[in-house]
Amino acid sequence: MEKPLILVTNDDGITAPGIRNLVKFMNEIGEVIVVAPNSPQSGKGHAITIDSTLTFEEINLEGPQKDYSLSGTPVDCVKFALDKILTRRPDLVVSGINHGANSSINVIYSGTMSAAVEAGVEGLQAIGFSLLDFSWDADFSHAKEHIQNIVKKVLENPLPKGIVLNVNIPKLAEQEIKGVKVCRQANAKWEENFDERINPHGKKYFWLTGYFNNMDDGHDADETALADGYISIVPVKFDMTAHEHLLHLRTILE
Amino acid sequence: MEKPLILVTNDDGITAPGIRNLVKFMNEIGEVIVVAPNSPQSGKGHAITIDSTLTFEEINLEGPQKDYSLSGTPVDCVKFALDKILTRRPDLVVSGINHGANSSINVIYSGTMSAAVEAGVEGLQAIGFSLLDFSWDADFSHAKEHIQNIVKKVLENPLPKGIVLNVNIPKLAEQEIKGVKVCRQANAKWEENFDERINPHGKKYFWLTGYFNNMDDGHDADETALADGYISIVPVKFDMTAHEHLLHLRTILE
Repeated sequence: MEKPLILVTNDDGITAPGIRNLVKFMNEIGEVIVVAPNSPQSGKGHAITIDSTLTFEEINLEGPQKDYSLSGTPVDCVKFALDKILTRRPDLVVSGINHGANSSINVIYSGTMSAAVEAGVEGLQAIGFSLLDFSWDADFSHAKEHIQNIVKKVLENPLPKGIVLNVNIPKLAEQEIKGVKVCRQANAKWEENFDERINPHGKKYFWLTGYFNNMDDGHDADETALADGYISIVPVKFDMTAHEHLLHLRTILE
Repeated sequence: MEKPLILVTNDDGITAPGIRNLVKFMNEIGEVIVVAPNSPQSGKGHAITIDSTLTFEEINLEGPQKDYSLSGTPVDCVKFALDKILTRRPDLVVSGINHGANSSINVIYSGTMSAAVEAGVEGLQAIGFSLLDFSWDADFSHAKEHIQNIVKKVLENPLPKGIVLNVNIPKLAEQEIKGVKVCRQANAKWEENFDERINPHGKKYFWLTGYFNNMDDGHDADETALADGYISIVPVKFDMTAHEHLLHLRTILE
C-alpha cells in the first residue's frame, strides 16, 4: 500500500520545535512534505498575501521529509504547496504543533488553525495541533502517541466534508493525560488591554495585550476538557452561516 | 432620545472612498467615530498585531465625525477603539464599504468582515458592507438607502447573540436592485494560480492570483441572490463548531 502523503505546516515558522516534532511524528506514518512560513506568523488568522509577492526556498533539515520555507502566511503556505510544490493531492494536511493554546475563540486568530481550515476549503482532510505551553522549550514528546493515534484514525475514517479538527493538548505528562474528548468551542474571549508606552521621540505606541476570559463551564466545552486533563478535539467548519437564524432574520430584514 | 453611537472601520484604509461614503451615510443616523487602518489591509482575515507595536493619529477629514487612523489590521482597530478611544460601548459597529465582494467563502479572508466578526465577539451589534465593484472610483451612492435601511432595522431589532451580518451589494443602479435576501454562505472557493516571475537578480517570485469557483446554485445561497440582482445578507457566527458532527466524531475519536 502506498504511504499517505502528508503536508505539514504551522504558524510559528519552519524551524520552530513544534513543527520539527510534528514532522518527526508524521515521518513514521507517511511521506512528508513541509511547506511552512520562513518567519513567525502567530495571530495572522486567515490572512493571505495579495499586496506583495512571495518567494520560497528548499532547505535541508534533519529527516527524510522535504522542507520548503515560504515568505508568506500559513494560509499562503497551503495554497502555494497545492499549486506549486506538491505533485499530487495530499491525503492529509497537519498544522502545528502550535506553541500555545488554540482552543475556543483562539481558532479565529490562529494561523495554525487557519492553515488547517484552508486545507478544508480545498477539500482536504486537515488537523491543527496545539500544545498548551507557549515556551520555545516545550516538551512535545508526551504528545507523540496521542497525535499519531488521532492522525491514524482520521486516515482510516475520513472526516465529513467541510470539517477540520482543532486538537489542543494539555501541558501534562503522558500518563496524566486522561484521554480525548470531542468538544464544542467554548464561549470565551480576550479582554484587551493595550499597553501604552512612549518611544524615544516622545510619541505614544501600544502593545496588544489582554487576558483570556472563559465564560463557559459546560461539560462539553473544549476549555472544560482541557482543564480536566483531556485532549480536546473540536470539529471546525468554515460555513460560518448561522443557519438557525435565517428564518427569523428574513422576517426582519427582507 | 440619545443618538446611537456608531463605530466605523474597514480594511481598505481610512481614506478609501468606500469608508468615506459609509461615514456620510452613518452621520445621518448617529454619532460616528471612525477607527480604521492607516493603510490597505485587504485579505488580512482575522489577523491581529502581536509581534510589533501600534500607533494612532487623530486626523481631520470632512464631516462631523471623529477620525482615528491606526497602524494595524481591521481587527486591531476594533480592539483598539474599544480599549483606548471610545468612552462608551457603541450601539453598532459597521465595516466597509468594501471595494469588492465578500460573499461566500470570502468572509474568511476578508478584513472587512473580520472587523465585524471581532465586534460580534465583543458582544456588539455589527454589520460588514461590501460592494461588488473593485474599482476605487466605484459608485457607492446607489447603496445609500439600502445601507441606511439595514442599519435602522438592526438598531430597532438587535441581532441574536453571537451573530453579525455580511451584506453584499450588487453593482447595479438603484432601481435595478430587486431587494434584499437573507441567505446562507454559498459553497464556493478560490482556485489559486500563482503567477511566477523572475526578479532582476534572477530569482523566482510569485503573485497569488486565482479565479473564483462557485459550486453552488442553491436558491438560498448568497451568490445566487447577488447574480439575480438582490442584496445578500448572510448571518455569520463565530462559533465554528460543527455541532451536527459531534456525536458521530465521538464514536471515532474518543
